[in-house]
Amino acid sequence: MLTRIDHIGIACTDLETTAAFYARTYGFEVLHTEVNEEQGVREAMLRINGTDDGGASYIQLLEPVREDSAVGKWLAKNGEGVHHIAFGTADVDGDSEAIRDQGIRVLYDEPRRGSMGSRITFLHPKDCHGVLTELVTAAEQQGTHG
Amino acid sequence: MLTRIDHIGIACTDLETTAAFYARTYGFEVLHTEVNEEQGVREAMLRINGTDDGGASYIQLLEPVREDSAVGKWLAKNGEGVHHIAFGTADVDGDSEAIRDQGIRVLYDEPRRGSMGSRITFLHPKDCHGVLTELVTAAEQQGTHG
Repeated sequence: MLTRIDHIGIACTDLETTAAFYARTYGFEVLHTEVNEEQGVREAMLRINGTDDGGASYIQLLEPVREDSAVGKWLAKNGEGVHHIAFGTADVDGDSEAIRDQGIRVLYDEPRRGSMGSRITFLHPKDCHGVLTELVTAAEQQGTHG
Repeated sequence: MLTRIDHIGIACTDLETTAAFYARTYGFEVLHTEVNEEQGVREAMLRINGTDDGGASYIQLLEPVREDSAVGKWLAKNGEGVHHIAFGTADVDGDSEAIRDQGIRVLYDEPRRGSMGSRITFLHPKDCHGVLTELVTAAEQQGTHG
């Protein structure tokens, strides 16, 4: 069951400049940064609020580390902006399988590693009214299901 | 002070079809619908989770009621997808003035009426790394500040 808005993923050309904008303008500070080589991005997570499922909602800033990464290609085509949205669940495996069974394209056979030790998968935007949609089980939630 | 992700605004061509997708696929139900004549949109609010500032996070579906509305023009250019993001604050007036003082373009002179009796304003996407950004004070928060 999807129980929160986990994050909004925003593609940017320079992670430090964009993080500085969010800190200066809104007071949102970077909690965590990492490189996800598989995704070809550098990420900064800005924690915005806690959620009533025991999790939290973040802004995730994404800077491509390779032009041929998915985010790099998207940025070249669209410019900076909202790249995807993510819903949190205790059971990304079960929920993504149930959604796949409805005929929606799930991009990975099995969930992969996301920010801060999470497990993630993506749904095809053309099957989701134009929205690239991620499902996330946070590290703290893993092992809490089933 | 901005204390939550209030909502993600998603432009769609048909509100009922898109709301049915969100209900069927994710289990998110419509809490509220309304027409905002000033904005030229029909809106559906899907409550996703509560937030630790006492508010909540929503998906907001937006269907233009006029082709020449801002959302109508955006949809004609971009197709369905994420139109804006919104942060919640107890003081949209003070926060938007402070942001204006930093040289960021605030689109309204004074906050206007948003969904469910909220007061809202928008920041120019070109000043926000490509993200049309809304600031919201929910109806329940009005009068709680200052």
